[in-house]
Amino acid sequence: MSPAAAEPLTPERILETTEEVLRRYGPAKATVVDVARALGVSHGSVYRHFPSKAALREAVTERWLGKTVGRLEEIASDGAESAPSKLEAWLEALFDAKRHKAGDDPELFATYTVLLAENSGVVEAHLAELVEQLGRIIAEGVEAGTLDVPDVPAAARAVFDATGRFHDPQYAAEWTSPTISREFEAVTSLVVRGLRA
Amino acid sequence: MSPAAAEPLTPERILETTEEVLRRYGPAKATVVDVARALGVSHGSVYRHFPSKAALREAVTERWLGKTVGRLEEIASDGAESAPSKLEAWLEALFDAKRHKAGDDPELFATYTVLLAENSGVVEAHLAELVEQLGRIIAEGVEAGTLDVPDVPAAARAVFDATGRFHDPQYAAEWTSPTISREFEAVTSLVVRGLRA
Repeated sequence: MSPAAAEPLTPERILETTEEVLRRYGPAKATVVDVARALGVSHGSVYRHFPSKAALREAVTERWLGKTVGRLEEIASDGAESAPSKLEAWLEALFDAKRHKAGDDPELFATYTVLLAENSGVVEAHLAELVEQLGRIIAEGVEAGTLDVPDVPAAARAVFDATGRFHDPQYAAEWTSPTISREFEAVTSLVVRGLRA
Repeated sequence: MSPAAAEPLTPERILETTEEVLRRYGPAKATVVDVARALGVSHGSVYRHFPSKAALREAVTERWLGKTVGRLEEIASDGAESAPSKLEAWLEALFDAKRHKAGDDPELFATYTVLLAENSGVVEAHLAELVEQLGRIIAEGVEAGTLDVPDVPAAARAVFDATGRFHDPQYAAEWTSPTISREFEAVTSLVVRGLRA
């Protein structure tokens, strides 16, 4: 990434560059000064948008996690599909997104694994958002009579927990196993069947 | 543990002492010489039963994992209960056993977490045995008409994967959460419902 100080210094540009710097130097060494240098600006300019190194790391973590959420939200709010199909599609999209993040750029994934451990508040909010999306799909299915669930938020959480092997980064090493897709399908269909009316 | 060289030197005594030594010195430092010293015997006597340090560590890991299996086997082979009740009881007994191991003696649990990473063959055989027990319960349910499952081994594996949060030691830190029992019950009932005829 070459310095391009003529472009306006937006938070998004700072975050993109922060990701580059993290990838290059690793999470232990990357500093705000490195980010400013890569952008060709003073570190004061970066601090104007992100008041501390911690705030910058939190924001870059949030942005990375947020990338998955948009596609999942599309599935969750699709009016044409039935709830059971949406659940399957949503779980598959989540697994695909995580698998690609881990497989396409393993160094960046390892970097974010460190950042996730630092920013537990951001992670919790992200997980709550995902469980909330699941809850909306399940509530729709209950409404339409395709699903039968006594406690929707508890069921949403249970679906998320039961599929953890396919989205929790702790399991990333298993996602390249030749049997993982079959195992994912077995868990998904078990879980969706467990919710059916 | 005081030396008691008069007692016969059985593999079981060596393994018990090895566990003590591992707990005291940690897995990085514990040696066969430490084990022999604690038993009041020469290290040659220990090597007569376990030909290498690796073999001794493997055997102690196997013994530790095996402690859970007996109770679970009792549940799996109980002729009086229906398959759905047995499944719930089995999953609860597994979670209880793991939770107790982690909570009652956290240092020993941490020690075994290191050993588990070293002895992946032993761990795999242990997991295969657990999944096989689940498969027997599920097959019984299919036979009796209480469960409806197209592929029993795949379903057994799916049940095991879906409940990983409640037995995989990676999650041990979450097992003291005040909501964990409720979350366990939600996942268990979802999974058992997913197998029902």
